[in-house]
Amino acid sequence: MFQKPRGTRDYGPDEMARRRWAEDRMRAEALKCGVREIQMPIFENLELFTTKSGSEIVEELYAFKDKGGRDIALRPEMTAQVMRFYVSDLAVLPKPLKVFYFGPCFRYENPQAGRFREFSQIGAEIIGANTPETDAEVIALAVSMVESVGLKDFVVRIGYIGILRRMLEESGLSDEKISEGLHYLDKNEEKKFAQFARDNAIPLEKMASIMAIRKLRGDTTVLEQLDSKEEGEYLREVMECLSSLEVKNCEVDLGIVRGLDYYTGMVFEIDALSLGAEKQVCGGGSYELVPLFGGEQVFTTGFALGFDRVLIALENEGLEPAKQTLDVYIVPIGDNARRKALEIVASLRESNLSVDFDTMRRSLSKNLKYAASVNTKKVIILGERELSKGIVTVRDMISGEQKEIEIKSLESNIDEILSS
Amino acid sequence: MFQKPRGTRDYGPDEMARRRWAEDRMRAEALKCGVREIQMPIFENLELFTTKSGSEIVEELYAFKDKGGRDIALRPEMTAQVMRFYVSDLAVLPKPLKVFYFGPCFRYENPQAGRFREFSQIGAEIIGANTPETDAEVIALAVSMVESVGLKDFVVRIGYIGILRRMLEESGLSDEKISEGLHYLDKNEEKKFAQFARDNAIPLEKMASIMAIRKLRGDTTVLEQLDSKEEGEYLREVMECLSSLEVKNCEVDLGIVRGLDYYTGMVFEIDALSLGAEKQVCGGGSYELVPLFGGEQVFTTGFALGFDRVLIALENEGLEPAKQTLDVYIVPIGDNARRKALEIVASLRESNLSVDFDTMRRSLSKNLKYAASVNTKKVIILGERELSKGIVTVRDMISGEQKEIEIKSLESNIDEILSS
Repeated sequence: MFQKPRGTRDYGPDEMARRRWAEDRMRAEALKCGVREIQMPIFENLELFTTKSGSEIVEELYAFKDKGGRDIALRPEMTAQVMRFYVSDLAVLPKPLKVFYFGPCFRYENPQAGRFREFSQIGAEIIGANTPETDAEVIALAVSMVESVGLKDFVVRIGYIGILRRMLEESGLSDEKISEGLHYLDKNEEKKFAQFARDNAIPLEKMASIMAIRKLRGDTTVLEQLDSKEEGEYLREVMECLSSLEVKNCEVDLGIVRGLDYYTGMVFEIDALSLGAEKQVCGGGSYELVPLFGGEQVFTTGFALGFDRVLIALENEGLEPAKQTLDVYIVPIGDNARRKALEIVASLRESNLSVDFDTMRRSLSKNLKYAASVNTKKVIILGERELSKGIVTVRDMISGEQKEIEIKSLESNIDEILSS
Repeated sequence: MFQKPRGTRDYGPDEMARRRWAEDRMRAEALKCGVREIQMPIFENLELFTTKSGSEIVEELYAFKDKGGRDIALRPEMTAQVMRFYVSDLAVLPKPLKVFYFGPCFRYENPQAGRFREFSQIGAEIIGANTPETDAEVIALAVSMVESVGLKDFVVRIGYIGILRRMLEESGLSDEKISEGLHYLDKNEEKKFAQFARDNAIPLEKMASIMAIRKLRGDTTVLEQLDSKEEGEYLREVMECLSSLEVKNCEVDLGIVRGLDYYTGMVFEIDALSLGAEKQVCGGGSYELVPLFGGEQVFTTGFALGFDRVLIALENEGLEPAKQTLDVYIVPIGDNARRKALEIVASLRESNLSVDFDTMRRSLSKNLKYAASVNTKKVIILGERELSKGIVTVRDMISGEQKEIEIKSLESNIDEILSS
């Protein structure tokens, strides 16, 4: 027997219906916000990803040489691709450009619960606007996506990486050193950060202040403890916009660092609390990346949402979408009935019903069993008796009740056929 | 500037909307036929594809070693994956199993018009039934998919590879030799086939008969020229089922060989005539593959449809879906209006309208220009004057007409807002 590759998954009909349902709901939220879909290739030149994330990322990538000797990698995420596409083509479109994407991404890591080598991301970017309402709109979309599939037990934490960045800058640190410092804060390594602060002559008071800011979390009143009025005001405005947009479960969390160098201002994360230790399902913020890919500086805010993790969280919360059903299953009995059955199949499908029929020429009882297995609402039976009378027998698969309907009036009686 | 990899494509908002529209239509057709979606990984162990298609296929694959030293390949098609998934998991589901798939596939070939290194396939398989109506149902689904997006200028050619296969068998040829002979017929290499026939002592009469059968094409009357009543009867039944299912543009074509060894009975192809030389958009038939992947013999009929080629054919036929539109774009003027605008955004989105708003605090004229660029139906203007009167100005973007509506009655007047 052949195995699927390690760390990958197959999806059977029920699971796949659930995934498409969730994907469609999230896509609908983006479109409702005037955010339009774009798509990029599954693989890219390796350099695209190392440019964004540094050469260390190669360790975590499915990277390989193609037959032309080019270094290629399966995408680990899609923001770098959006930036590339923006610089090459999309920059000519009117601003702000509001786009989203959905698709598979790949990471070479040890498979474990909730972490797979192939996984799906959905994300969005607003390019060209730098107002609090832009940041709020991005957060609102991420939240409406997780809410659209029914997730309830989540919290949105919103911070401002610009504050810590500025404080480290004020200590005279180089960009590289700032990255190192933020890295310790991101990983919550307080001792290492303290050592780093001593090594780099960051005054004790400043260090204490940085540590204190990291712990600020709650409603907007925590912003009163910030030195800089400007940053606090900005974040307060974002929070107020979110309130006007009726986005729930939001709180300020100035401890959000996000381990990536390119975040500059607002940063946010969504946690699905049912997931335990690996509870983060979404991360985003405003960032500067376009110049890195050869474009002119432009304001950018975006997020990426772990589609698979959201689905696991939904399961943990006991939420299941309605099962896929089949409207009608037709059972012809005998050769004459078979031809007539196909005509009925065609006409009911024409009326947009989902219709299947017996292709295996089995007995009625076997057919009823099969119809039940695919969640059929009504079975239409067409035997010699029915055929001679120009009728069919319609059986309700829940109540078991049967009634006769004239074949020629089937199409005009679809509501009746589908009602119990 | 970074380039996308050779032979791949990015899709901007308009093109992507068109692709999702087509994908959704085709998916809806499958679901209407009781065919359910499944999904497999983007990459597989290389052996899966060489087992199905022979070691020569490695040449055309994106094949590489992962970091664990495993031979991996990006999938060139999905039937082998369906077979693997069937053997490992799906075989326990009730028969017939009717499944479809949609997604990207990859081939390392020289990019040229209509042929890309990353392309999309949609396809279906019915597993476990071997009647003419099963074959007809598979063909009907393929046809309804291309019709669902509006394709008109196409023809469905239906043949029976079993006939040529039997005739070669009767000449005492080994399986390997039969494959070789069919290969020449597939490639339309008549001289090579004639030489092959001589080399393998196929009687001249037999050879002539094979050549003649290959040329039989038209309505079901051509079947009368077949020696074997059984095969002709079978194909006639398939054609009659198609007629009952109201499938149009079908003809018999006994010249269809399909260059793959595993096809056993009915084979069919759909040509989109506007595509010229590369006109085939779909190929399928009944085949035997499950035992190759370690499962018990089971009847299988399926097809794969070149999604990208269908889209090119649509373009050639001058068919374009309606452009994506935005229902409402809201322009607040001034700080006070901005807050109120966000509340209106939230309430109209709650009513399922697609709603965007000015996040760049631009002038009205710039906003109207932007709104037009994203195909907005109505612009809602909220200035100080409107705010003080508790109203908004609603501007129709086609007629330019404006009218005032009370803010509090916006939600209950959505139909009015959207009407011209």
